[in-house]
Amino acid sequence: MENTHDFRSPAINLIGVGALKDLPLELMPYKLSKALIVTDKNIIRLGYVEIVEKILKDLFISYDIFDGILHPDCTISFVEDALTYFKKNLNILKKDYHFIISVGGGTNHDCAKGIAIVATNGGDIEDYEGYEKMTKPSLPVITINTTSGSGAEVSNVAIIKDESRKVKMTIADPKMMPIISVNDLRFMPSMPPEITASSGLDVLTHSIEGFVSTEASPVTDSLAIDAVKLVFGYLRRAYKNGNDLEAREKMMFANVMGGMVLNNAGLGYVHSMSHQLGGFYEEVHGSCNAILLPHVLEYNAVSIPEERILKISEAVGAKANNKQEAINKINHSIQNLSEDIGIPTHLSSIGINENDLELLSKNAEKDINSLVNPRKGTFVDIMNIFKAAM
Amino acid sequence: MENTHDFRSPAINLIGVGALKDLPLELMPYKLSKALIVTDKNIIRLGYVEIVEKILKDLFISYDIFDGILHPDCTISFVEDALTYFKKNLNILKKDYHFIISVGGGTNHDCAKGIAIVATNGGDIEDYEGYEKMTKPSLPVITINTTSGSGAEVSNVAIIKDESRKVKMTIADPKMMPIISVNDLRFMPSMPPEITASSGLDVLTHSIEGFVSTEASPVTDSLAIDAVKLVFGYLRRAYKNGNDLEAREKMMFANVMGGMVLNNAGLGYVHSMSHQLGGFYEEVHGSCNAILLPHVLEYNAVSIPEERILKISEAVGAKANNKQEAINKINHSIQNLSEDIGIPTHLSSIGINENDLELLSKNAEKDINSLVNPRKGTFVDIMNIFKAAM
Ligand SMILES: [Fe+2]
Ligand SMILES: [Fe+2]
Repeated sequence: MENTHDFRSPAINLIGVGALKDLPLELMPYKLSKALIVTDKNIIRLGYVEIVEKILKDLFISYDIFDGILHPDCTISFVEDALTYFKKNLNILKKDYHFIISVGGGTNHDCAKGIAIVATNGGDIEDYEGYEKMTKPSLPVITINTTSGSGAEVSNVAIIKDESRKVKMTIADPKMMPIISVNDLRFMPSMPPEITASSGLDVLTHSIEGFVSTEASPVTDSLAIDAVKLVFGYLRRAYKNGNDLEAREKMMFANVMGGMVLNNAGLGYVHSMSHQLGGFYEEVHGSCNAILLPHVLEYNAVSIPEERILKISEAVGAKANNKQEAINKINHSIQNLSEDIGIPTHLSSIGINENDLELLSKNAEKDINSLVNPRKGTFVDIMNIFKAAM
Repeated sequence: MENTHDFRSPAINLIGVGALKDLPLELMPYKLSKALIVTDKNIIRLGYVEIVEKILKDLFISYDIFDGILHPDCTISFVEDALTYFKKNLNILKKDYHFIISVGGGTNHDCAKGIAIVATNGGDIEDYEGYEKMTKPSLPVITINTTSGSGAEVSNVAIIKDESRKVKMTIADPKMMPIISVNDLRFMPSMPPEITASSGLDVLTHSIEGFVSTEASPVTDSLAIDAVKLVFGYLRRAYKNGNDLEAREKMMFANVMGGMVLNNAGLGYVHSMSHQLGGFYEEVHGSCNAILLPHVLEYNAVSIPEERILKISEAVGAKANNKQEAINKINHSIQNLSEDIGIPTHLSSIGINENDLELLSKNAEKDINSLVNPRKGTFVDIMNIFKAAM
């Protein structure tokens, strides 16, 4: 019987304090000469894009800057705006970009991937919703990451919001894996505490969902459990003090590890469901995840081997002797952590309307992440999870 | 202060039972048309090369086969033979290979990397001894792995024996990272038990040395500890019964994880020293490592934080309350494991000559792996470790 568990990541991941300094050396062999930088005005204001521009100038790589990403969700419109900008430059200046550098957080990376897909494959970004819909490799993408959360800088997944349908599309295809990722603490501004909190809980969810997914492997298991330990060890500290560099560095690694987990093990119902909330209400992704995670775990428990549940409970620092005790303690620990860092623990407190739940549940059932959830349910099951989380 | 811990691996790692079936899909986007297959006669006899040939034919990729790897150490002469073969084919048939596919174990992968380096960079393979001596990327290398041991299929390191100097050269350069690795259990013959044993102990050594190296990161720590657990959980079973597919699959994953660890965290004195034994005496790499590992750990202990030692002892399944107790128990567990799988625990039993130790120690001190050993010693320290291991 076939049973494969591929592991894919950018071949080159520069990580650490000062990691960006090695980017020129990595870029050189590619002999690239024209870049499109995809970013937003805040990242420009922080001075980060200027540093990237200097690197490119020193390598005699010409570039243009698209800074039209306007809010923390990547939308079809941003991708389309960039492509228009892209084509305008192509026509007027005869520029054919060789690669895309995204500077920012997950939103910018996701937009960059969307642009890179359409640039080589043509059509509209909606054409690529789902798994492996591309026929050609995307333009090469280099991700320079400025936040610890989405793991998008090391994944071949892009979450792009379709505002007309109010859904978040998941586009997943190995052919758009970034070629180089950079996680440099010097390029990560101290975030507002609420962003630290929700991004950290996103990392936690990637790790726990990936650990119990049907596609988990020994490689992703290993990264997942340690990412959980890092979140429980350092997220409170990073939240309390944005200048706690040790805590932020550990969260940066946890994010990379969680990103590798989500890319290779997939996720599950928590993300299927929270993507719907994000599509409908502009809710903060990490907070939705943290609220849903305990309820999805409770639902999934019957399909997860006891040994795995006990490993999670050990990783969150709670001793347990059996599955149900472990589930209770894990969920208690997650909710405790959320409370300590100012994240709500009920959907009702973030203004979810009970009347929307049926449609949200039907859409969640169809979300690509549902395919690897350990327990197969119906939209009614999903609706009940939503209700339990209210 | 700068503090970077890059993570590099092949972007694509196909792993599992039947993983090879995905190779054609991965090869297509590269639009490659000519391959050199690097292998040995045993692998051809097993029928594996034929399967690779079929894949290439179906993709209309032409190829030649170099099967001149004659024994389990990659030597300069094999690399030179291949390059002569390569050039002969280049001249006569006007073939310019686009990439190299190595089919076999670590020896074949290391030879393939050696060929790929010289093919694009020119000169002799000896010119590239050390770290980052290449100026151009190597030819692309695809590794199809048939043994669980060296981790070479996922590393940008090649160990090539210089028979004239009786040393094993380490060549390390990200510019020769394989682009795709394949670990397919269906492509891994049931190995003779003594090979299973020594390769498994090599994996163990990669993981433990990488875990205590000065370049360890949270990513490599995570993979290292779990690889240690897999070795202690499954190596005895894989040794006792070559048809225990579950045990062999776990060892296959442990090998990939250990390979990622050695590539990104580096190794230490055990490998510095065992490379000398391999250079001088044709000794089995994994067995030398297993003999040396407890003595190097004992020597290094003073420079390793207690917390790390306790984590290793937990991973080998031994509870300990302090550093020295943990070191004792770890070393006892390693020696127990070696004995259970028929690997000697003293250098004297593998015919090492005491008179050679001074030269061996001086060469070991210069080995590239010594740079990341947690405790900085002199060749006299190394000689004392050799003596303790006699
Ligand atoms: Fe997420
Ligand atoms: Fe080794």
